[in-house]
Amino acid sequence: MLAKPLTLSAPGKAILHGEHAVVYGKAALAVALNLRTFLRIKPSNNGKVLIHLPNIGTSVNWETFRLRTLLTVFSGNPEQMDALKEFAGITTELSAAESLGTLAFLYLYLSISAKYGQIPSVEIVVWSELPTGTGLGSSAAYSVCLAAALLTACGAIGCPVETEKSIVRWSEEEMDLINRWAFRGEQVIHGKPSGVDNSVATWGGVLRFQSGKFTSLKRVPTLRILLTNTKVSRSTKILVASVKDKILKFPAIMNPVLASIDAISHECESVLEAMAVSPSQEYYPVLEELFDINQHHLNVIGVGHSSLDNVCRVTATHGLHSKLTGAGGGGCAITLLRPDPLMVEAARQDLSACGFECWETSIGAPGICLHSLSSLKAEVLHIFNPV
Amino acid sequence: MLAKPLTLSAPGKAILHGEHAVVYGKAALAVALNLRTFLRIKPSNNGKVLIHLPNIGTSVNWETFRLRTLLTVFSGNPEQMDALKEFAGITTELSAAESLGTLAFLYLYLSISAKYGQIPSVEIVVWSELPTGTGLGSSAAYSVCLAAALLTACGAIGCPVETEKSIVRWSEEEMDLINRWAFRGEQVIHGKPSGVDNSVATWGGVLRFQSGKFTSLKRVPTLRILLTNTKVSRSTKILVASVKDKILKFPAIMNPVLASIDAISHECESVLEAMAVSPSQEYYPVLEELFDINQHHLNVIGVGHSSLDNVCRVTATHGLHSKLTGAGGGGCAITLLRPDPLMVEAARQDLSACGFECWETSIGAPGICLHSLSSLKAEVLHIFNPV
Repeated sequence: MLAKPLTLSAPGKAILHGEHAVVYGKAALAVALNLRTFLRIKPSNNGKVLIHLPNIGTSVNWETFRLRTLLTVFSGNPEQMDALKEFAGITTELSAAESLGTLAFLYLYLSISAKYGQIPSVEIVVWSELPTGTGLGSSAAYSVCLAAALLTACGAIGCPVETEKSIVRWSEEEMDLINRWAFRGEQVIHGKPSGVDNSVATWGGVLRFQSGKFTSLKRVPTLRILLTNTKVSRSTKILVASVKDKILKFPAIMNPVLASIDAISHECESVLEAMAVSPSQEYYPVLEELFDINQHHLNVIGVGHSSLDNVCRVTATHGLHSKLTGAGGGGCAITLLRPDPLMVEAARQDLSACGFECWETSIGAPGICLHSLSSLKAEVLHIFNPV
Repeated sequence: MLAKPLTLSAPGKAILHGEHAVVYGKAALAVALNLRTFLRIKPSNNGKVLIHLPNIGTSVNWETFRLRTLLTVFSGNPEQMDALKEFAGITTELSAAESLGTLAFLYLYLSISAKYGQIPSVEIVVWSELPTGTGLGSSAAYSVCLAAALLTACGAIGCPVETEKSIVRWSEEEMDLINRWAFRGEQVIHGKPSGVDNSVATWGGVLRFQSGKFTSLKRVPTLRILLTNTKVSRSTKILVASVKDKILKFPAIMNPVLASIDAISHECESVLEAMAVSPSQEYYPVLEELFDINQHHLNVIGVGHSSLDNVCRVTATHGLHSKLTGAGGGGCAITLLRPDPLMVEAARQDLSACGFECWETSIGAPGICLHSLSSLKAEVLHIFNPV
């Protein structure tokens, strides 16, 4: 049970290689981003459950006794979602982020309470460095943080003992439980999530996923990257359907391209594991070449976009290599940075001048973990302990 | 034997699909361009053999009795090339075009005379619409014209009887002989030619070549294209070697790309045959898509160039689709034009503004053929019959 406040965080994700091809049983590599969602949970004695989401300016609370009433009839069945929406006061006036954030919280609170015993009065603040709606796994990071916090609060999983390390983690079995509950949160938010995002947010590092199975790479290097949001909105569903159409139209042309993407994922995995063992500059040109090749392949299967071509061209003029990441058709691009890149700032400026938004971060970040307050950066501390 | 002047012509070539992949046993499609090399041969009685190449401002002649003397010792062996160079007065001061043009002529004159009896006193003028050194098969068109003219002049092949048609052709057996002699001319000029260029210049239309075998497509449509010379010079040898290196470096990634290119050639062949049977606008988007896909593949195998990317981008802004043609790394790009394109002139202007040179022409042109003078366009007539 929750004896004291806890601060935890989970990372966002990016797809390094294998987006779309994964739908056809090919390998994909998903990486944890060092852009994280932070959650602070503390016991309270006001008989309420409160959740505050400063990113979207939302704060809601419910009396615990009202939640207890709801619990007696709550089974977690999808048919109950409408009743849950009504209870949560979700109307069409709210933004999708507010509605879904509130709904996923209520759903996890009720489901976990139904299974492990009601979670007591708590105050929760969730704040994220991740942009929403850009395919960087912000909802999964949110779900994973919520699942970890609520499972800890009701005692379903232990509270990792803080050591001298700045971060501590749960056991493998506990992480697995967090992941499974987070997946249910993702289902509330996305309907039919692939499970990739919550797995990366839980386990961190680099995951290979293929034919529905996830494998964590044993050792992974930390690589610096630049993420660029083209701000061109796209429908993942429509893009996935268009790839399918292309494969049906030109099977003999397209199937080898999927096979090549599969080989890129495997080659990249080997390079990452080799880099983790012996970091060396010599691996960068290979990783860059794989980015370039896959970007061409993604254009071939029809998920490119002129805005993404722009990102590639602009970064290329600064000696940097980029590819789209995720669904494509706009959305985000990922650019590999060398350890001591000279021209990143210039590239960022040129990208901003195109109207794009950039985040410099790293990949291979840890998954869900517990933080000692002293290890948090000032920005996060300020959110959780406003003066 | 040559009783009267003859005018003949042979087309240049472009690779539609399969460049580089053909080295690995994949199918390639080579098309005859409606940019042609014209040759006029007329009997003369001044005891000389004269060849005039107005494109490069060269005119050389030899006394037939001196050629007869040379014939007694000429076997056509490669070792005799140096002696031939000396005889032809080829020094390092001459341009490659002058030297090789003269040498190929002398070589074919002597070899054909040695085999079929000496060719009498003639005057030959060769003029071409094809740019040289751009991979558009100008040397093969030259060799094919020379072989056809010289074989006709010595009676090794007949002189097709002119009909009411503006062009007439030789029999299949005769064309085969022309092609084989033209290949020897190409060997003088190129050292190790693939045989593609002279085959296209001989047979015209569209040829599929795979594993050293050539197959003429039975029916081909005439398609309008724009050829753009980026003027970026490249070494075919170095490009071929770099592709090989890439395949050795990433076999699992690259071999599927070659398989996909192979499938593109076959798909394109089917579409061209279908278009020839029933011309319809509906085929253009498919041909355009195949161009786009293959251009990405060619970038993947490493034979792209920023100048070629520029051609693709510039033409795309006018709704046109382009790919590199031939060796890549610069050189020429080919752009497909629809029957009634609105924006070709605007695209040409933009390409010229980039410093590129363009030729609008068509593909699927006839191979080596004999012209009636009345059917020649004014520009060609003017070259052959200057006032």
